Amino acid sequence: MALIVQKYGGTSVENIDRIRHVARRVIETRQKGNDVVVVVSAMAGETNRLIALANGITADPDRRELDQLVSTGEQVTIALLALALQDMNQPARSFVGHQVKITTDSSYSRARIKSIDAKIVKDCLKKGEVVVVAGFQGIDEEGNITTLGRGGSDTTGVALAAALKADLCEIYTDVDGVYTTDPRICSDALKLKKISYEEMLELASQGAKVLQIRSVEFAAKYGVNLVVRSSFNHNEGTLVCKEDKSMEEVIVSGIALEKGEAKVSLRRVPDRPGVAVRVFGPIAKADINVDMIVQNISEDGFTDMTFTMPRTDLSRARKIIEQLSPEIGLKRIDADEDIAKVSVVGVGMRSHAGIAAKVFETLAAKKINIEMISTSEIKISVVVKKDQGEVAVKALHAAFELGKK
Amino acid sequence: MALIVQKYGGTSVENIDRIRHVARRVIETRQKGNDVVVVVSAMAGETNRLIALANGITADPDRRELDQLVSTGEQVTIALLALALQDMNQPARSFVGHQVKITTDSSYSRARIKSIDAKIVKDCLKKGEVVVVAGFQGIDEEGNITTLGRGGSDTTGVALAAALKADLCEIYTDVDGVYTTDPRICSDALKLKKISYEEMLELASQGAKVLQIRSVEFAAKYGVNLVVRSSFNHNEGTLVCKEDKSMEEVIVSGIALEKGEAKVSLRRVPDRPGVAVRVFGPIAKADINVDMIVQNISEDGFTDMTFTMPRTDLSRARKIIEQLSPEIGLKRIDADEDIAKVSVVGVGMRSHAGIAAKVFETLAAKKINIEMISTSEIKISVVVKKDQGEVAVKALHAAFELGKK
Repeated sequence: MALIVQKYGGTSVENIDRIRHVARRVIETRQKGNDVVVVVSAMAGETNRLIALANGITADPDRRELDQLVSTGEQVTIALLALALQDMNQPARSFVGHQVKITTDSSYSRARIKSIDAKIVKDCLKKGEVVVVAGFQGIDEEGNITTLGRGGSDTTGVALAAALKADLCEIYTDVDGVYTTDPRICSDALKLKKISYEEMLELASQGAKVLQIRSVEFAAKYGVNLVVRSSFNHNEGTLVCKEDKSMEEVIVSGIALEKGEAKVSLRRVPDRPGVAVRVFGPIAKADINVDMIVQNISEDGFTDMTFTMPRTDLSRARKIIEQLSPEIGLKRIDADEDIAKVSVVGVGMRSHAGIAAKVFETLAAKKINIEMISTSEIKISVVVKKDQGEVAVKALHAAFELGKK
Repeated sequence: MALIVQKYGGTSVENIDRIRHVARRVIETRQKGNDVVVVVSAMAGETNRLIALANGITADPDRRELDQLVSTGEQVTIALLALALQDMNQPARSFVGHQVKITTDSSYSRARIKSIDAKIVKDCLKKGEVVVVAGFQGIDEEGNITTLGRGGSDTTGVALAAALKADLCEIYTDVDGVYTTDPRICSDALKLKKISYEEMLELASQGAKVLQIRSVEFAAKYGVNLVVRSSFNHNEGTLVCKEDKSMEEVIVSGIALEKGEAKVSLRRVPDRPGVAVRVFGPIAKADINVDMIVQNISEDGFTDMTFTMPRTDLSRARKIIEQLSPEIGLKRIDADEDIAKVSVVGVGMRSHAGIAAKVFETLAAKKINIEMISTSEIKISVVVKKDQGEVAVKALHAAFELGKK
């Protein structure tokens, strides 16, 4: 008898029929002799509907009130799922964030979970109930409702699994699992049986938007076994877990494509200490998530500094840098929205040399120009022209023999 | 500088424009130098939408889960109203039931308020904020979300006014105030400037659905001055307050018509002690609100017993009595949906004789047959045929000279 936390996303609960379907799936799991805690998101479209209401009043709503507003989305779903379970003769009880004391910091709209009181959940499980918990939300220490940011229900699921010491946390979504690359790009992409937390983190942040990054960090920190699988079929999913020996034998696990970024270059920046802080301090303050940062060696006391960020933040980032420009003394700002980032990820890279060389060689053979390079222990990312992104992914997927044999 | 609690119903906040309108109204009140606490209902139609979702799953939803579900309606409105106030440069903060600790018993869907922690509200008022509180909801001692029943936001408003020792509780609705009778029936009906709690209770329970009955009981218990007025104009409303001398001079304050009831007669019931309990015990258990009960003197050891209840509960009541029938030994059950109840209300009745006689005389002159009579110190109710209800109201309104002079 295991304790399983299951998380179902918005498309899995988007209407009454789907909610019933989820209820049946939960009951199946219980009938196999497991205790089940279910975390659900808002019905697909509901969060956007609520945000649109707020935007009908003001373009820049106060974040406390926005969280108060959007947290109702999950509250609706948990009640409906509990009713569906009860209707199928499965005792069930729903809880919002404050009822299971999911305590967070006070960063509205992107709060971080600090603690969960698992007692009430355990009491219900003992009584044979299925516990249904609202994802995405918590309360801060003053009792204000907070939300965890888009995809935050994944984190709720993992955090609950950690607090309850659950055997497994299943993330149900509309894809079968994690693939070697996007199957819409490479039709021979293979579903991975297993992937390490680190690889998943690199893939998630590199554009394979299967899991919220923070949920993977959380899972890694507490050693929660995560399974990503589809709520629309019974296919085995992908297990995200601690790195083991078998994984090291695979040099490259997956290739990710990110087409939603833009690139900004600061040309001829005086190469003095403290310049980077003066640029990236104000940008971080404006809540712009900078991804890659590249700075090359300087020449004549000047250097070029380039970074990428979500394209939607480009105009704000540009404005900030224009204001800083006189102070920093840079010569020119170049912005480029026409980029794609391709990342090759695998823990096996640590013990295998020559992977970067093979990446560059493969792209060169396709005449793809590399505009930026950034590497970590288990990842090589390159920025290329946007229309060459998919070609690059296909070439690399083939070069590392990731497809179906 | 006064402290005013304002409650706005569902039609007053049914869309973004109306919410802005409420915000302006709140700010007007503040600009006159008052502190303001606002209680709002769900946007018109929202509660029904949520109940329909639940009914899409089961015809008889668990009440705990139903309360978890429908309480989201008010949560949406408070956030939107707080945003609208902020957008007009009025600092504001919204609170749901658990955030201001509106503690209730655990009777889901018709919970009663036990206590309110006014501290956090007072702290916000001190900071110059308008406090926006979700009506209709609370939490029980285990932290389960409860709701107070239809119209429960009125009670939230009055209970907050009592807890805060507010100077006034204004109930904003879509009517101007309390009238001598329904102006749609008597075009010369007059708006009352003042009415006592007791009269309001009799009128409210007799079909003048301006205020939730419990809110009036609450106001009477704590001496809260209530004003009923319209959110769509600036007309003076009706003050509901403690009885004073001037009120006694008015013999009849108002006339109410209730057309939503049905009548059940138990014919030739053996006239033995304990029969009434055996009938009304099971009916109360089934949550059917019996209104009038009339039993006449017996003949040959048998009597007739008649009672009224909401028409929607008739078939359930009938079933219960049919099951009891052999045990009680009654001869026949007659049900009648074709009734209307007309009530004449006024604290002046206490000190004036002959009011009942005048009622009967007035109806007789119009050839209206009286099927049931029930009286209290300040009220005379009669049941007549449904199609004679309005005629009866008009005749009585004229007879007691309640209309415009």
